[in-house]
Amino acid sequence: MGQIPEKMRASVLTEIKTIVLEERPVPQPADDEVLIQVASVGVCGSDVHYYQHGRIGDYIVNAPMILGHEVSGQIVAVGADVDPARIGKRVAIEPQRPCRVCEFCKAGDYNLCPKMEFYATPPIDGAFCEYVTIQDDFAYDLPDSISDDAGALLEPLSVGIAAAQKGGTKVGDRVLIAGGGPIGIIAAQSARAFGATEVIVSDINPARRALAKTYGVTRVVDPAVESLDDLAAHVFIDASGAVPAIQAGIRATRPGGTVVLVGSADEIPLSVPDVAMRELNVTGTFRYTGTWPLARALVESGQVELDSLVTHVYGLEQVVDALTGEGAVDSLKRIVRPGVTRIDDPVAEARAAS
Amino acid sequence: MGQIPEKMRASVLTEIKTIVLEERPVPQPADDEVLIQVASVGVCGSDVHYYQHGRIGDYIVNAPMILGHEVSGQIVAVGADVDPARIGKRVAIEPQRPCRVCEFCKAGDYNLCPKMEFYATPPIDGAFCEYVTIQDDFAYDLPDSISDDAGALLEPLSVGIAAAQKGGTKVGDRVLIAGGGPIGIIAAQSARAFGATEVIVSDINPARRALAKTYGVTRVVDPAVESLDDLAAHVFIDASGAVPAIQAGIRATRPGGTVVLVGSADEIPLSVPDVAMRELNVTGTFRYTGTWPLARALVESGQVELDSLVTHVYGLEQVVDALTGEGAVDSLKRIVRPGVTRIDDPVAEARAAS
Amino acid sequence: MGQIPEKMRASVLTEIKTIVLEERPVPQPADDEVLIQVASVGVCGSDVHYYQHGRIGDYIVNAPMILGHEVSGQIVAVGADVDPARIGKRVAIEPQRPCRVCEFCKAGDYNLCPKMEFYATPPIDGAFCEYVTIQDDFAYDLPDSISDDAGALLEPLSVGIAAAQKGGTKVGDRVLIAGGGPIGIIAAQSARAFGATEVIVSDINPARRALAKTYGVTRVVDPAVESLDDLAAHVFIDASGAVPAIQAGIRATRPGGTVVLVGSADEIPLSVPDVAMRELNVTGTFRYTGTWPLARALVESGQVELDSLVTHVYGLEQVVDALTGEGAVDSLKRIVRPGVTRIDDPVAEARAAS
Amino acid sequence: MGQIPEKMRASVLTEIKTIVLEERPVPQPADDEVLIQVASVGVCGSDVHYYQHGRIGDYIVNAPMILGHEVSGQIVAVGADVDPARIGKRVAIEPQRPCRVCEFCKAGDYNLCPKMEFYATPPIDGAFCEYVTIQDDFAYDLPDSISDDAGALLEPLSVGIAAAQKGGTKVGDRVLIAGGGPIGIIAAQSARAFGATEVIVSDINPARRALAKTYGVTRVVDPAVESLDDLAAHVFIDASGAVPAIQAGIRATRPGGTVVLVGSADEIPLSVPDVAMRELNVTGTFRYTGTWPLARALVESGQVELDSLVTHVYGLEQVVDALTGEGAVDSLKRIVRPGVTRIDDPVAEARAAS
Repeated sequence: MGQIPEKMRASVLTEIKTIVLEERPVPQPADDEVLIQVASVGVCGSDVHYYQHGRIGDYIVNAPMILGHEVSGQIVAVGADVDPARIGKRVAIEPQRPCRVCEFCKAGDYNLCPKMEFYATPPIDGAFCEYVTIQDDFAYDLPDSISDDAGALLEPLSVGIAAAQKGGTKVGDRVLIAGGGPIGIIAAQSARAFGATEVIVSDINPARRALAKTYGVTRVVDPAVESLDDLAAHVFIDASGAVPAIQAGIRATRPGGTVVLVGSADEIPLSVPDVAMRELNVTGTFRYTGTWPLARALVESGQVELDSLVTHVYGLEQVVDALTGEGAVDSLKRIVRPGVTRIDDPVAEARAAS
Repeated sequence: MGQIPEKMRASVLTEIKTIVLEERPVPQPADDEVLIQVASVGVCGSDVHYYQHGRIGDYIVNAPMILGHEVSGQIVAVGADVDPARIGKRVAIEPQRPCRVCEFCKAGDYNLCPKMEFYATPPIDGAFCEYVTIQDDFAYDLPDSISDDAGALLEPLSVGIAAAQKGGTKVGDRVLIAGGGPIGIIAAQSARAFGATEVIVSDINPARRALAKTYGVTRVVDPAVESLDDLAAHVFIDASGAVPAIQAGIRATRPGGTVVLVGSADEIPLSVPDVAMRELNVTGTFRYTGTWPLARALVESGQVELDSLVTHVYGLEQVVDALTGEGAVDSLKRIVRPGVTRIDDPVAEARAAS
Repeated sequence: MGQIPEKMRASVLTEIKTIVLEERPVPQPADDEVLIQVASVGVCGSDVHYYQHGRIGDYIVNAPMILGHEVSGQIVAVGADVDPARIGKRVAIEPQRPCRVCEFCKAGDYNLCPKMEFYATPPIDGAFCEYVTIQDDFAYDLPDSISDDAGALLEPLSVGIAAAQKGGTKVGDRVLIAGGGPIGIIAAQSARAFGATEVIVSDINPARRALAKTYGVTRVVDPAVESLDDLAAHVFIDASGAVPAIQAGIRATRPGGTVVLVGSADEIPLSVPDVAMRELNVTGTFRYTGTWPLARALVESGQVELDSLVTHVYGLEQVVDALTGEGAVDSLKRIVRPGVTRIDDPVAEARAAS
Repeated sequence: MGQIPEKMRASVLTEIKTIVLEERPVPQPADDEVLIQVASVGVCGSDVHYYQHGRIGDYIVNAPMILGHEVSGQIVAVGADVDPARIGKRVAIEPQRPCRVCEFCKAGDYNLCPKMEFYATPPIDGAFCEYVTIQDDFAYDLPDSISDDAGALLEPLSVGIAAAQKGGTKVGDRVLIAGGGPIGIIAAQSARAFGATEVIVSDINPARRALAKTYGVTRVVDPAVESLDDLAAHVFIDASGAVPAIQAGIRATRPGGTVVLVGSADEIPLSVPDVAMRELNVTGTFRYTGTWPLARALVESGQVELDSLVTHVYGLEQVVDALTGEGAVDSLKRIVRPGVTRIDDPVAEARAAS
């Protein structure tokens, strides 16, 4: 692996709308951890939100913090209790550290662990930097057929898988997805992998509708001109965060069906008779448990395709551009490669990779 | 059974707030039906709502209709395909008629049948009258140990059972119930029967809190003075229909828990982060499927007690009193006995029965 | 639809190993039934078993009976309560008639109905004849893209779907199937449709192994030379009926996994420590409920391919050949077309169709 | 807590049928562990089996080992990472140590962890000694209302709870239990707590049948004189290990029902048509996950009663008597109290405690 330096570069959120490229010590892996040289980090809406507002709900950034939690890389060192044979492996990171002791952890619901430490959630640092650590079992080997970028995007794919799971998506289902952005498209691919025979994506943006069609979506709808009230979806996944879309989706869900709220909406007016008389299940997802092996298998088998979602690639000096998407026309997924300082043509770089 | 007359008396809702005691033909049982002489009919909030408003949501009373759907009685005649040995049996009625052909019916979710015909739901007549018909398999034999009134109340018990089922209530659970009226108390008894080790009832009315304690409730709470935010209930059942109670209940539900909306609220503001970050399941119940045998078993074994809920008993001439509860101080459950014209002391009659 | 004749030809099992082509009255549809002119009937192992032994377990053929229960055709008349617009529709038949009244039916488990009447199960006639009746809702419209033969084979596909359902097959699973005959191959395709990422078929017959590979199977195994003890399958489906295959499959199932016995074995020695210490679930399937819409959707979408399974096609005079497979080298699925008297080249006919 | 000695007494299985009272070092708690002074240890059938045969299946005693895994006691010291406030607490021990890292652990199925270390399972020592260690979160506080003996018996209660869980026992169920020994009686009480309205215990021993009736069992059966073929149980739990009892129980299970094999049988002949045509689920239990809080709640609420099961109490010198039950007439549950050297009247001691 060559020499591991003592210092590394890190793009740090020092205050709202301020990212500073700093020198930081390279972290030391604890006994059960591995040290990973970061290859690729996806930009998530939550990173953008922290950058712009300094908080998400009750999570408040009170001290300088590194953003970024969609991560792949290469193991360059291991803690005392970890098999040294792991050094050199390309891996995708599940960016969480549950306590493994509370009742939620022991029941298999570790995403609900009250002591969870999660990348890029205050006060835990994320991965817009050169090196990170993670517990050994949360670093998943990547086969050659999965690129660094796709490895990073196993994280949003895990969000899509969790949404399909929470919706109880099963073979033969009709699944409606509101929002044709990265999460919507990944949720659509996940629904297909779960056996859904009809996947409908609703988006007011014609470009996103056109794009969605290339990802196995069986029907796209412009909600401004077409009602979905008679759709009778088994599962409705909101990936838009838009209140009218959520309400239209609830109307489009069949009796006994499930509504999964993934998008970051605030408050919605919920009709109790709607829920009660059709016995809807309205729920949401909070991160994921145990999804990486499945995510990897779905990409490896070709059931889910991630590389083509990447439209812009940036270096570590360009994290602000990556976060704001300034000038990134028709951007879908923006990626930061912390091993690179600056990338002159983010679009060309993305095309070269996919 | 003696002679079945050609005519019967029926209390008919002819227009809003108008009940007329009419003479109607005794219905004829179809081939798969039984004819039942009605013994006891409970008054439900939905009966009251139809009496006062002429509608519930999209169900509109456009023609004279008989109210009442919590019913027990005695089989006095049977259709051509029904075993005549059923004549003479005391029975409780499951007051619905699903199509048995649609996908919901065949999947066991017949409460969601779009062709459902339900007692006292327009345009189907209910049971504030002397005789009714029902399909043979929806008339359940009553043992001697279950009174006529308790037999009628297997219907609200079915509501309580359905709420416990929808909540996924299981042994060891902590269950919060908002509202200490008849449905709240029955839901509390149902939760206990499902194995809940803690059942908390919240009500602003001290008399109802005191009463709830006599039904196996482990704790009662006055929401005006005590917060439930730290309760961490596995299941929250709203039997109040009050928006603040629903919101307090949602806060009191633990991550991964279930919120069952049984009370007749209209619209609630739902916090999406609340639902998503704690992965709550918000749902409701619409009637019930297959609950009568269990309801009967729970009353027979003493796990649920219904007779003591009856506080006032009326005759067929007094249906308006029964519906409005005019002068019925501290009434919990009001019952109509269609075989009786008038009962002079509704309270004494109720005490005599329980 | 032209004129419906009064008489039809029917191949009747009159005694063990004796099929007689008789003239029978065309059945009259009851009020809730349709009359179907039979197009295509698959030969099932149970048909062969009745032909050879006159019984299956407690089901004994005591009177002449028509075999055949994998059926497609065209509606030519309808009962009084059925929409006449159905006349002319090409349909696949779900060959069962549950009572719709018992607790199993009302709970959605109508396959367990104790009053079930099932095609070609004594004393109910099957479909090796020109016309049959079925309740309207058990005749499923076929799109043009599904052939008559594939329509008939929605029945064995329903067996494969039921096996996948009973096994709890879910996305990402590793599924082992013992036996590469028609049911094994259909079960393999079903498992893929349910999202299994690994499907392993074990068969001692190299031709069947080679064939299985063409149906999306990810690995084939010769159990005579390769052990599966370390496979750790999530689901094991036995479609072989062979005791050693079942035992090998149980060893190959991972802790917490499910063993689904579909093949017609008699008695197996079951190691209790094996089941208990690995918490295996050993179960089986008995027919199916609600599978036709899904079966049709899977064929229509191309996720399951059925036509190519048909290797031999016979006329109504040739039912004995179809049952015995006499001279049908490498036969997989043999079909009878009751509208045809005799087919000279059963293989060529099958090839022409697929 | 007073001084913790350096040495302790321990009853060690040195070879088959040989227990030696040895001096051993008191174990040191690891950082995440507590040190417990043992109060009460139940004798389990597996202890007896190791004593008599030196092995259970693939688990072989190759070196001296301490038996006993049903344990209560008092925390007397804690590891570096444990809250010192725990010192002095009376606790029940969940006698297992899962890895918390493998896919089974992270999915909530830690009983299936391949790296599990379990008390009194080679090569891990058990609790027939004065002090033991366990991870902090597997030592559960006991309220004053639960005795030391009952605290130890939360372990077999966990077996009963796991059996009820695996059987899918739910409110209103009819549950058949074969075998009226300690596990049978505890399984019966567990089934009641899960809401079963009928619990039938079958045993050939009249004394055990009589006893079972005092624990909420609704019916007892002598299988030698009464057939259960028509019982139609929803759940059958075998706590007998006897092949004829298992076979009778399978016949007594209704279609779609579940058979849970808890007793230590070897191999049973399983009729495949029985399993398939009635869609039975045949399964077993291996230990338990997350059951202690529920077990404690059920004893605290009085839904399960354990003290009266204890018929004989022994000191540490008498472990052989406790294991063999030599002279222990009508013994049900035998207990060892490692803090005591010798108890003169094991029966009187048991009566005094319960």
